Amino acid sequence: MITSNQNPKLKLIRALQGRAKERRDAGAFLAEGIRLVEEAANANWPMRFVLFDETLNERGRSQVETLKSRGVDVEEVSTSLMKSLSDTESPQGILAVLNEFQLPIPNSPNFILIPDQIRDPGNLGTLLRTAAATGVQAVLLPPETADAFAPKVVRSGMGAHFNLPIHSLTWDEIHQIIKTAGLQVFIADMDGQSCWDINLSQPVALVIGGEADGASEQARRLAHGKISIPMPGQAESLNAGVAGSILMFEVIRQRQSKNS
Amino acid sequence: MITSNQNPKLKLIRALQGRAKERRDAGAFLAEGIRLVEEAANANWPMRFVLFDETLNERGRSQVETLKSRGVDVEEVSTSLMKSLSDTESPQGILAVLNEFQLPIPNSPNFILIPDQIRDPGNLGTLLRTAAATGVQAVLLPPETADAFAPKVVRSGMGAHFNLPIHSLTWDEIHQIIKTAGLQVFIADMDGQSCWDINLSQPVALVIGGEADGASEQARRLAHGKISIPMPGQAESLNAGVAGSILMFEVIRQRQSKNS
Repeated sequence: MITSNQNPKLKLIRALQGRAKERRDAGAFLAEGIRLVEEAANANWPMRFVLFDETLNERGRSQVETLKSRGVDVEEVSTSLMKSLSDTESPQGILAVLNEFQLPIPNSPNFILIPDQIRDPGNLGTLLRTAAATGVQAVLLPPETADAFAPKVVRSGMGAHFNLPIHSLTWDEIHQIIKTAGLQVFIADMDGQSCWDINLSQPVALVIGGEADGASEQARRLAHGKISIPMPGQAESLNAGVAGSILMFEVIRQRQSKNS
Repeated sequence: MITSNQNPKLKLIRALQGRAKERRDAGAFLAEGIRLVEEAANANWPMRFVLFDETLNERGRSQVETLKSRGVDVEEVSTSLMKSLSDTESPQGILAVLNEFQLPIPNSPNFILIPDQIRDPGNLGTLLRTAAATGVQAVLLPPETADAFAPKVVRSGMGAHFNLPIHSLTWDEIHQIIKTAGLQVFIADMDGQSCWDINLSQPVALVIGGEADGASEQARRLAHGKISIPMPGQAESLNAGVAGSILMFEVIRQRQSKNS
């Protein structure tokens, strides 16, 4: 059992809770809580090691046994140390260090999401969760967007990270992918055409701009049009995670009704 | 200028940051930040008093002048005290104490939202923000839902509180309103009928269940049916704020396409 604060595994975890650079340098990120570790295991995600403490419940313990039987490095840690490592208000007693790993972007994708200048980790996580739910084929992250592998983004993604190709790219690389796939790029924008009037059955990339400044200059240069969500009520705008989610569901609504 | 920590206005603010009971007893709640205070002022919301400090920017100062000219009690407070009062990471130097006040529920409403057992303040605020954007006519809060006037809910509501009738009610009262208005009640539930196949042009009440346990027994007894959001992808569920927002927009999409 790990009881020393100076244990190298604990040092690594603390580094991974910090800046994106630390995660890139280590080639790893964190997943905390029973459900997230389960999702990672179900997706056969490569694990560096797992820590648990005695507060872990039965469901979690059975997960620990499964992981051990697969040869994953699993170690117990004292409850006080686990508490000091936890990023959440009610720790569940399990924490995994996962290897950085990218699911491949499928050939000829027809549904891509580009969160552009999204800074709030909760909003980015929500976008990823909805992207996984709607069957988005890849999420392309331009340089200005928050790190998708920060603990809070992983947490609010609720397992999306293990089922969704998420690629951090330059704008040139994004442009190349869009050109090759022949995607129509639409930027979410209140001055755009109504999402109910745009044909989203064609191969599309949706750009969701940031909370503060909307989409970037580079995104606007790439775009074929602006897409809006009609708002009959009194609000000026929607939460970025909500706006992106509504547009993703409108894509699948149109595609399903076209096929039926 | 207020410089004492013992000032009764400051004591009231600290109480209002706490539990729902404190807000009910005081008949007041807080709005922090330039935009929220502006929204409250634009809606002619009754204000008890406003505090600002010297860090307030020009837009905020002009707001302060407008409020003073309307006879609102506005006082300056030292920057260190304002910082101690602020609930946000980057305080904007303005904070209003607003009177509890309920906008009336319109006669014969045809679009009602019922957030049921929603505990996360951010999710509740998001639901209120989208409700205001979609022209929901009233939000009915059953006893088990988080307090809509907690600081974090008000903040993520982004002004929705000042344009939307929000009523905390018993289930009996909710039942009465639904019966009188002849509303069809649909509970968001993954086992429900697809939202694309249900007629939402008729007068409806949408019940959005909580993050942990979904909708309550009482809500299920009231409901005429269950409504789901088709998820072709890999995720098990959506964020409650997102799910509710998608359903609210589906209501207005169907109503608009029926009218056009």
